[in-house]
Amino acid sequence: MSMDKIVEVNMGDFNCTVEPGVTHETLNQHLHTTGLWFPGDLGADASICGMAATNASGSNSARYGTMAQNVLNLEVVLSNGNVMYTAGKDRRPRKSAAGYNLTKLFVGSKGTLGVITQTAVRLYARPAVCSVAVCPFRTVDKAIEAVVATLQCSVPIAKIEFLDAATVAACNRYSKLTLVESPTLFLEFHGNSEAEVAEQASLVEEIFASNDGREFNWCHAPEEQKKIWSSLHSVYYAILSEKNNVKGFTIHFSLPTSALAKAVSETRKDIDESGIFGALVGHVGDGSFHCIFLVDDSNQDEMKMIRELSDRIVKRTLASGGSCTDEHGIGISKRKYLENEYGEVAVNTMIAIKKALDPKGIMNPNELFTKN
Amino acid sequence: MSMDKIVEVNMGDFNCTVEPGVTHETLNQHLHTTGLWFPGDLGADASICGMAATNASGSNSARYGTMAQNVLNLEVVLSNGNVMYTAGKDRRPRKSAAGYNLTKLFVGSKGTLGVITQTAVRLYARPAVCSVAVCPFRTVDKAIEAVVATLQCSVPIAKIEFLDAATVAACNRYSKLTLVESPTLFLEFHGNSEAEVAEQASLVEEIFASNDGREFNWCHAPEEQKKIWSSLHSVYYAILSEKNNVKGFTIHFSLPTSALAKAVSETRKDIDESGIFGALVGHVGDGSFHCIFLVDDSNQDEMKMIRELSDRIVKRTLASGGSCTDEHGIGISKRKYLENEYGEVAVNTMIAIKKALDPKGIMNPNELFTKN
Repeated sequence: MSMDKIVEVNMGDFNCTVEPGVTHETLNQHLHTTGLWFPGDLGADASICGMAATNASGSNSARYGTMAQNVLNLEVVLSNGNVMYTAGKDRRPRKSAAGYNLTKLFVGSKGTLGVITQTAVRLYARPAVCSVAVCPFRTVDKAIEAVVATLQCSVPIAKIEFLDAATVAACNRYSKLTLVESPTLFLEFHGNSEAEVAEQASLVEEIFASNDGREFNWCHAPEEQKKIWSSLHSVYYAILSEKNNVKGFTIHFSLPTSALAKAVSETRKDIDESGIFGALVGHVGDGSFHCIFLVDDSNQDEMKMIRELSDRIVKRTLASGGSCTDEHGIGISKRKYLENEYGEVAVNTMIAIKKALDPKGIMNPNELFTKN
Repeated sequence: MSMDKIVEVNMGDFNCTVEPGVTHETLNQHLHTTGLWFPGDLGADASICGMAATNASGSNSARYGTMAQNVLNLEVVLSNGNVMYTAGKDRRPRKSAAGYNLTKLFVGSKGTLGVITQTAVRLYARPAVCSVAVCPFRTVDKAIEAVVATLQCSVPIAKIEFLDAATVAACNRYSKLTLVESPTLFLEFHGNSEAEVAEQASLVEEIFASNDGREFNWCHAPEEQKKIWSSLHSVYYAILSEKNNVKGFTIHFSLPTSALAKAVSETRKDIDESGIFGALVGHVGDGSFHCIFLVDDSNQDEMKMIRELSDRIVKRTLASGGSCTDEHGIGISKRKYLENEYGEVAVNTMIAIKKALDPKGIMNPNELFTKN
């Protein structure tokens, strides 16, 4: 049994239920003629159940939220073999306040509380109008300040993605683009009409101009838009192809809006001073960043340096009120920060929940906690 | 110590932290000059920590979500006396995927897992333009069909509230209005510009007209808008004043969009056939309904009848994929439906979590579960 069925699409309620083998691209191909759409848009064509287990977000989360907002119900096999529906079998009300919110507890729990065997997600009306723009900036600071000002004006932008100059250069080479090689924001606007999108866009153009944004390049043709996003989806491979005999070492983090500009510019400075090749990219519309370092993992000095650099970046993030991971779960190498982020009482509470639901410790053990 | 402090307002991050004594009206008065705003808008001037404990939603939830979406962090005193921050002390990233989502687990847990002593909530930019409209319909069915069509077009309406004819009549008498006494929808549109609001409104006018909506009455003046919403906030008292020597008996429920029209019209029919005075009102933009019955609670026959009627309505809701409560928690009289809604395995999982966090059973015992 391959467990790759789209179990149900409820057109009138804007939701559907899928098995673990269904990826976001497969689902969206299936929905193509319906006018509906699932906005979870990761670089990789990930499984929707996996995205639920790791609380993935992707580049549309600025407008449409992360998996935490979009998962409505989960079918889970618990450690004792019982099958549970986190919101009740076949339930899909727009809201409920009856019991504990088990759905949100299981989203992002990485299989440590149970195995997700079906996920019900919200769908959205496919936007009637979609516009894409690329805007380079002279400095990282100015680009991030423009993002902060845009977020503070509550413009409902679908995507705001940031690439630093090194990453834009890597994308130019890898994806055969001709972008200006400076810190750049990539935007996507969604709306029900040309007028609605134009209004959002003109407000953002004004904000960007007042933050020293350079020319605003519009991509209206669907194939041009596809080329831009497909090059951003390949950004990890573009960076990897910048050097021979290296591996990628990635860290994720997220920040409060007001701390973004300072943290990002200090992080860029740290990377430059370390001498390690590091690219900084981000789903910045949601305050989240990824650093991708290129390292020779046989070189012990380089590995030590990268661990120290990553440690400094995560500690600065935590000191600014941020989170040590923005999506895909904490990852084994960052489990040690869990207590820094949540405090001892909260981590002990999480462990108490884990023990209550998995007393034998058989569900993805050692994935989240460094203690029992 | 009265615990009524607004602990912190983070203007740049659009959030604030409050103690249990702070109500949504107090907070919004405090924010008045900032351009920011907390959208939780209940009829009662409720405490924000209480709204978090009961997962309240209110009339703006169609656009701005319920407390489950708007709470960012909670300070909680656990059963062992430890103080916990569900998202970590002083944390306010836009997202995190590090540990279990304790914040969402505690929202709606009604004090059964711990006592909330501070709540951090999202704030929003106060809408630049706000328009209110009232539209009567000939039948309940047509009004609800108009709502379903509007939801399916993804118009970002702030409020869509439904009152049936009996309730409109009660409001006319109680709040001295002159509304047409038929099933009516009350709408509020928010936007950054007149053009944005006009575009939303014209789409909705078209949808309503094609569902036999009658004249669309606009309220542009703030004092007119205030009068409408304040009469809706008093709806419980308006209904209560319809008869002497009676008490109000209220049930809440919520439905998937596609099941709304049928469930509401069957519920209205049930009430009419019972001979009991019952009014049907709803935050219908979010699929949720309240039935308010007027009963003489010294009359045992009437009390039996009302319990049977309420049972029939809840069972129909659950059979349509809905929830037995849309906000404010399940309530002691509806605890018996928890297992119908979630299934035995999910309820046992909730109880296991409760026991893990409150082994002595001292936190608001017997509030949620009918078994141990």
